[in-house]
Amino acid sequence: MRWTLDEVEARALAVLRAAGASAAQAGPVARSIRAAERDGMRSHGLLYLPIYVEHLTCGKVDGQAEPRLTQPRAGAIAVDAAHGFAHPAIDLGLPRLIEAARQVGIAALTLRRSYNCGLLGHHAEQIAGAGLIGLCFTHAPASISPVGGKVPVIGTNPFALAVPDGQGGARFVIDQSASVVAKSEVLLRARQGKPIPEGWALDAEGQPTTDAEAGLKGSMLPAGGVKGFGIGLMVEVLASALAGAEPSRTASPFSGPVGGPPATGQCFIAIDPAAHADGFTDRIAALAEAITVQQDARLPGARRRAARIRTEAEGVELDEALMARLRLQKN
Amino acid sequence: MRWTLDEVEARALAVLRAAGASAAQAGPVARSIRAAERDGMRSHGLLYLPIYVEHLTCGKVDGQAEPRLTQPRAGAIAVDAAHGFAHPAIDLGLPRLIEAARQVGIAALTLRRSYNCGLLGHHAEQIAGAGLIGLCFTHAPASISPVGGKVPVIGTNPFALAVPDGQGGARFVIDQSASVVAKSEVLLRARQGKPIPEGWALDAEGQPTTDAEAGLKGSMLPAGGVKGFGIGLMVEVLASALAGAEPSRTASPFSGPVGGPPATGQCFIAIDPAAHADGFTDRIAALAEAITVQQDARLPGARRRAARIRTEAEGVELDEALMARLRLQKN
Repeated sequence: MRWTLDEVEARALAVLRAAGASAAQAGPVARSIRAAERDGMRSHGLLYLPIYVEHLTCGKVDGQAEPRLTQPRAGAIAVDAAHGFAHPAIDLGLPRLIEAARQVGIAALTLRRSYNCGLLGHHAEQIAGAGLIGLCFTHAPASISPVGGKVPVIGTNPFALAVPDGQGGARFVIDQSASVVAKSEVLLRARQGKPIPEGWALDAEGQPTTDAEAGLKGSMLPAGGVKGFGIGLMVEVLASALAGAEPSRTASPFSGPVGGPPATGQCFIAIDPAAHADGFTDRIAALAEAITVQQDARLPGARRRAARIRTEAEGVELDEALMARLRLQKN
Repeated sequence: MRWTLDEVEARALAVLRAAGASAAQAGPVARSIRAAERDGMRSHGLLYLPIYVEHLTCGKVDGQAEPRLTQPRAGAIAVDAAHGFAHPAIDLGLPRLIEAARQVGIAALTLRRSYNCGLLGHHAEQIAGAGLIGLCFTHAPASISPVGGKVPVIGTNPFALAVPDGQGGARFVIDQSASVVAKSEVLLRARQGKPIPEGWALDAEGQPTTDAEAGLKGSMLPAGGVKGFGIGLMVEVLASALAGAEPSRTASPFSGPVGGPPATGQCFIAIDPAAHADGFTDRIAALAEAITVQQDARLPGARRRAARIRTEAEGVELDEALMARLRLQKN
């Protein structure tokens, strides 16, 4: 059965509201589900809804939370998400971040007592939509050990960069985690009783493993070894330590009902290219073209963009089994 | 023969001055050579001096350049290095960057018509020394192709992050390039007529190669595949496109006398942790400890720190052959 994106958002909103989220909390999350389905990132679309509902029910997310914004300096905005969803807190902070970056040339927004913010690239893209470079960081419960160690210290800690195209959109969007693969890939194999390829994870003793269950009890391997760990550590410094959030090491899991609010954080930086040199848009267009002219090379985010064009015209397919599992009905 | 670090710096200064650099241009470069030798990074120490001298002589670097600073916004500082060395331009910009970040909470310094800035981590560390987070980006002539392509679009484009320890120093410093190994490693093998391991480089047709010469004509592989390319692309956006520098694709090489000034760029971001949340220093100390307590795991930059303690006490060893090759004498 085909659903329009409007139907996806409306349904997500209704489900979140029924699970106890206020309109202010549920609205931004429902829009994020729409955006994920639009871009073909179904794991963060309607499939995520049961987790949101579980977390509203068990108290990991406070559905009545009211995020609070302060601006201690002209270029520093801090939002306390108050154990609510990340999205409404981000929606509160982004307009002020954009205004500050235009005025000052650059600004940073940090969020604490926050939660999984879904697809990081979408937040970066919002900043690019305002004509600014968006550089975003978010952390997650620990799953990556330092190279040589066996105790996870950082999460799969992604960063995202969205680069404005000078026409109200992003020329390209980088959105990548610090690990070789997403943890959900290992989780999926564990559920299916399948092995994982070598190079994805280590067991609890820090040894390479192809056993998905052992990998979940151990740690995810960083992409590019020590360099991937370096990227994840940068993200930890900005999204957790700078923001004043719970460290990845002690944050409660993003899945399951145990441990109370994760209280993780985000850091979003916006930079106004016009503050530094003329001609930014032309330089970005030429850089992007140097990649796209090469056969088999593609711009970061190209797959999401292609899915977006398709689903905006055609909607998304939801089969009856999936709808039943999600306990969804059209309207 | 042992040299003190004072002797290293004095000798480097004399050599640069004799090659035509003004005191203002030579001083900061000589100090960077001292800092590289101090940290055991000899490739950027006295060994680099002949390249600096060659570039002063052939006109890749203007030894009389006078960098110029503008501050278009409260948090945006732009320095035109005027085809001189990068170091004096950075020395001009850093105090203003630090002042702006303290005032505004965050600030960005970009440099254009610049040059190879040596060890990026040292610049980040200067920012951390002022109690701010230093996040630095510099780009280089193109050597990495996009995944799936065969024409280099970005350089080995490193980034560095230095995190203040609350006592006037850095708790740790990340400094890493986007490629699996430094290009100099392939150059070294090519000179020695030795093969390179698979996974370091591609030939000009985009195929894996163990032939060092073929690798130099092709491209360096990014660390972690598409994720390493993403990191290098982020650096390109900030250090080149934002700064208004020559793109990596068209910048002249950092070695050899051909092509005129490279005119590359840098972007340094400074963030005041005190603008966001209390307790940053404690959170960083705990994060660092979670790494150092693990046997065989180490903090980024630990090797440089160990070398620093050693050479500050003992000086550095320069054998006669090396001194002859560098045409150096001890005063």
